[in-house]
Amino acid sequence: MTAAPTDEVRLARAYLSRVAEPYPFALAGLVAQLGPVQAAELVRTGEVSNDVASQTSARRATERAEEDLALIAQRGGRLVIPEDDEWPRWPFVALDQHGRRCGGCEPLALWVRGPHDLAEVTEKAVAIVGSRAASGYGEHVAAEFAYGLAAAGVTVVSGAAYGIDGAAHRGALGAGGLTIAVLACGADIAYPAGHQGLLGKIAREGLVVSEYPPQGTPARHRFLTRNRLIAALGMGTVVVEAGRRSGAKNTAAITLALGRQLMVVPGPVTSVSSVGCHELLRDGQAVSVSSVAEIVESVGRFGDDLATEPAEKESALGAPQGEAMRVYEALGLRCGVSDEVVSVESGVPLERVRALLPELELAGLALAVDEGWQRLEVR
Amino acid sequence: MTAAPTDEVRLARAYLSRVAEPYPFALAGLVAQLGPVQAAELVRTGEVSNDVASQTSARRATERAEEDLALIAQRGGRLVIPEDDEWPRWPFVALDQHGRRCGGCEPLALWVRGPHDLAEVTEKAVAIVGSRAASGYGEHVAAEFAYGLAAAGVTVVSGAAYGIDGAAHRGALGAGGLTIAVLACGADIAYPAGHQGLLGKIAREGLVVSEYPPQGTPARHRFLTRNRLIAALGMGTVVVEAGRRSGAKNTAAITLALGRQLMVVPGPVTSVSSVGCHELLRDGQAVSVSSVAEIVESVGRFGDDLATEPAEKESALGAPQGEAMRVYEALGLRCGVSDEVVSVESGVPLERVRALLPELELAGLALAVDEGWQRLEVR
Repeated sequence: MTAAPTDEVRLARAYLSRVAEPYPFALAGLVAQLGPVQAAELVRTGEVSNDVASQTSARRATERAEEDLALIAQRGGRLVIPEDDEWPRWPFVALDQHGRRCGGCEPLALWVRGPHDLAEVTEKAVAIVGSRAASGYGEHVAAEFAYGLAAAGVTVVSGAAYGIDGAAHRGALGAGGLTIAVLACGADIAYPAGHQGLLGKIAREGLVVSEYPPQGTPARHRFLTRNRLIAALGMGTVVVEAGRRSGAKNTAAITLALGRQLMVVPGPVTSVSSVGCHELLRDGQAVSVSSVAEIVESVGRFGDDLATEPAEKESALGAPQGEAMRVYEALGLRCGVSDEVVSVESGVPLERVRALLPELELAGLALAVDEGWQRLEVR
Repeated sequence: MTAAPTDEVRLARAYLSRVAEPYPFALAGLVAQLGPVQAAELVRTGEVSNDVASQTSARRATERAEEDLALIAQRGGRLVIPEDDEWPRWPFVALDQHGRRCGGCEPLALWVRGPHDLAEVTEKAVAIVGSRAASGYGEHVAAEFAYGLAAAGVTVVSGAAYGIDGAAHRGALGAGGLTIAVLACGADIAYPAGHQGLLGKIAREGLVVSEYPPQGTPARHRFLTRNRLIAALGMGTVVVEAGRRSGAKNTAAITLALGRQLMVVPGPVTSVSSVGCHELLRDGQAVSVSSVAEIVESVGRFGDDLATEPAEKESALGAPQGEAMRVYEALGLRCGVSDEVVSVESGVPLERVRALLPELELAGLALAVDEGWQRLEVR
């Protein structure tokens, strides 16, 4: 455990979180170089490079850090910053490596509501995303998979949208498990409005997380920026349903860019809701998952303690063949046949037939009767 | 065109076809070495190696070649042999290369019913196979895909079983196109019995093909041996539905062993009929196909003349972002807002906001009103 960050550091990050629209690459560079307190001071006074200025000049006079921290506290929340023990360091390593291709690196801070340690609950986490315009099939599968993952101790990360996202959160909650909703607006805002009750429950039993300060409103570009956090917080992303132009395909692309496992649930080819999933499968960049066990197996990192034995597989070319099978097939079904007839019918030489019949009898597949040999059905 | 084979050659192959149970590797080697006439004579007299004897001794006294040829002729059929122009030479090249792993090489002869040249109709062919215990979804997709392929001039090859096979044949016939039923019994036998009408129609409008002489009865090992012909006659195999232990998985494995394109139709993960398909997808050996266009694209060889333009794809990471989008999102929905407010809301510097607003106006995305700027919805 490291020393807890000072209030000064938290206030500086709260200020920076409101001043710059995510994701401000130049500002993040300045913070990395000088630390948040000094970076915030330079931003306030405008003594920054043109790049940083272009990201901060519009809002640099907005001094609401204390007010924002009070606002999130009122809602049972807090500002989690990289200096905190609960900062999800490992999940964000890939964001810092590949953030340029994903619309942003590690966030400057995260506004969080809920009773759990963010680092702990993201140790074993999988993102489940998909269309808002989901089918009954998609919502059913999302809820089932989320239930199974949560029951196995895996946190389900999603975006709280209608459709697949909502079904995933509900499934995880239904299992009494953990779920994280990553929002494209303030963590205190119920968006979509119809999910007010669901978001309240997640804030009580799971975590509601946002890069945007309290009262921040959702905007299209924020959903794209937010998607990188969903992809980064999961060890892999499951796309349950996605239309041809679904936002879930953006999260899928980011998942790949981050080097995380992209998983896709197949669906009926007659369903428009699965078109995006099948495109991802066909492109060969996603692995097909049809069960919770396959998701756990695919994600791999925590496979050791969670994965069950893979379902028994048989060699498709190893199906019974050969002389014994041919002899078996030539046996009488309702009455016995002579070994000579079996030989002609099966095309197996008589001496081999005579050798094989007792073997089949021992195996419970043939019965010696008065007229010859009769077949016994395989049980 | 080569010289037509003599009756002697055809009679020799007819005899060999009945004497040995497919697939007789040693006998085929003898035929390749000495030709069918001399090979047949040696088999008759028993002057053959132990290997060949073990494949022929049980039935070598069965002299029914003339009778069998008369029988198939009565049913509007013929014996097609490698010496005929209509022998499907190219489709069988892979069988001769990889036959040891597929239960058999090129057949010794094929009993054929139907008004088409076997070589011609297999120039552009795709196999469609799947479970007998198919779902309504599977039969629907099989029929639709077969219809579309047949309408595009592609022959549909299948096994005439209940379920997916039958739906595929019916779909092709429904398009007025070509279809080939490859049987595991004599080409004159209606198996399964419920497909008597369907097989009659295929024999009139397409082709019914078998490696087994007339009146040959179906047996389990014959289905496995037959499956290699289905896989070999198509440029690729589409598995529409397959349970965990479906025979279609055997055809799929042979398709891969022959180096042909294996295609799989995804389905609901809640359906047992699609479990085998999803296993094949997950193993990464099959490509997902959701449409006739994707099948044609996957098979490739005849892609030049058949494939349509692939559906437009967009870069999932290239969705609108950046300052213009942020400015657009910050505009008033029902009334105008000042450019200063837009700057603070969007986090974009005022000078950039002032440059971007006229651009948005030109693009029909923003409207200058009394109080400032109003957003116009994207049509």
